[in-house]
Amino acid sequence: MASLTTRERILQSSLALFNAQGLAAVSTHRIAAELGISPGNLHYHFKAKQLIVERLFRRFEERLEELNASTDRVRAIDDLWLTLHLRFEAIDAYRFIYRDMAYLGSEYPALGQRAQALTAGNLLAAKALCETLRATGVIEATAEEAQILALQMVFTTTCWLSFEQLVPGRDALQQADPGLAAFYTLTLISPYVSSESRAYLDYLRGKYLR
Amino acid sequence: MASLTTRERILQSSLALFNAQGLAAVSTHRIAAELGISPGNLHYHFKAKQLIVERLFRRFEERLEELNASTDRVRAIDDLWLTLHLRFEAIDAYRFIYRDMAYLGSEYPALGQRAQALTAGNLLAAKALCETLRATGVIEATAEEAQILALQMVFTTTCWLSFEQLVPGRDALQQADPGLAAFYTLTLISPYVSSESRAYLDYLRGKYLR
Repeated sequence: MASLTTRERILQSSLALFNAQGLAAVSTHRIAAELGISPGNLHYHFKAKQLIVERLFRRFEERLEELNASTDRVRAIDDLWLTLHLRFEAIDAYRFIYRDMAYLGSEYPALGQRAQALTAGNLLAAKALCETLRATGVIEATAEEAQILALQMVFTTTCWLSFEQLVPGRDALQQADPGLAAFYTLTLISPYVSSESRAYLDYLRGKYLR
Repeated sequence: MASLTTRERILQSSLALFNAQGLAAVSTHRIAAELGISPGNLHYHFKAKQLIVERLFRRFEERLEELNASTDRVRAIDDLWLTLHLRFEAIDAYRFIYRDMAYLGSEYPALGQRAQALTAGNLLAAKALCETLRATGVIEATAEEAQILALQMVFTTTCWLSFEQLVPGRDALQQADPGLAAFYTLTLISPYVSSESRAYLDYLRGKYLR
């Protein structure tokens, strides 16, 4: 039981350090020092940094796969806003993964491939979602427009938090705002939103713009 | 003269290595080895890796600033496609900069701040551009929609090439396609494009989709 707790503390601490300082900059020695345990003790739980990264990556995959599986319940704009909000929260919680993807993929090629497979899953879920929104009349778009929207949505959820670092006045360490990010993503579908669904978008606009 | 040539060879070689292997992974020793010169010779030209990165960053800034200055000549969809194409070419040529931004910003905070200033310049240029397209009737959008479009355009040009690594079937080392990326960016404005300008979008769609 004590052993399980140490293992979990290592994972939590690694995640916080990777997020704050970058995957490349954080060694297992640094993680052990942060926890006040010996490198030998850490090594007993995880034989290499790669095994820590893999475990965190698996948790991230599980959260997104769960969200992908639940997109078939999205039937209206407010459902969509909520599912986008939850997705941004997950990506923010594991923000080192997409932010440090170039390094992650070159250091751990198997994880780079799993990240691609995850993107493929995200795209499939987004396409099904946009098709549902189209079929139920929430958006008015051609099948091709719905496909492009799905790609834009996955691109935006994947990269927005990394882009925020580049926007002046935003600090990389500042708390991300998943609600604002979700609203921004919704503006992609805004030209296609049918008049009945527009009121909710206007409500969000009043909340997040200016 | 020989000295100038060595200096330029160091910059070219550094750029190629940073792009291919990542900014974090490439040391000045690695760069010297690649060129077949001694670390001492490299040190004579650049006292630290930071000075090489700064010089490359300056060239990247200059290319984007030049593009930003020329956006006031964009009057039609085909001009816009061309300027987006040139922007993706510049970002691709210096692709390590946006791809490795988290590392770059934490290692060289002054460059992180200049990257933010550059984004601010890109946003201003994109806003002026969208306003021109609106004023000349190329797009039909409200002032607020034009502002959001400008943000989407800067976000997309900044992050698209990094996102491509995550799309299955694309190799990170594979040649990027600036034309396709420019077309993808144009799909953002597609719902707002007036009927006279739509033919060019249809031409590009035929070229790049399927």
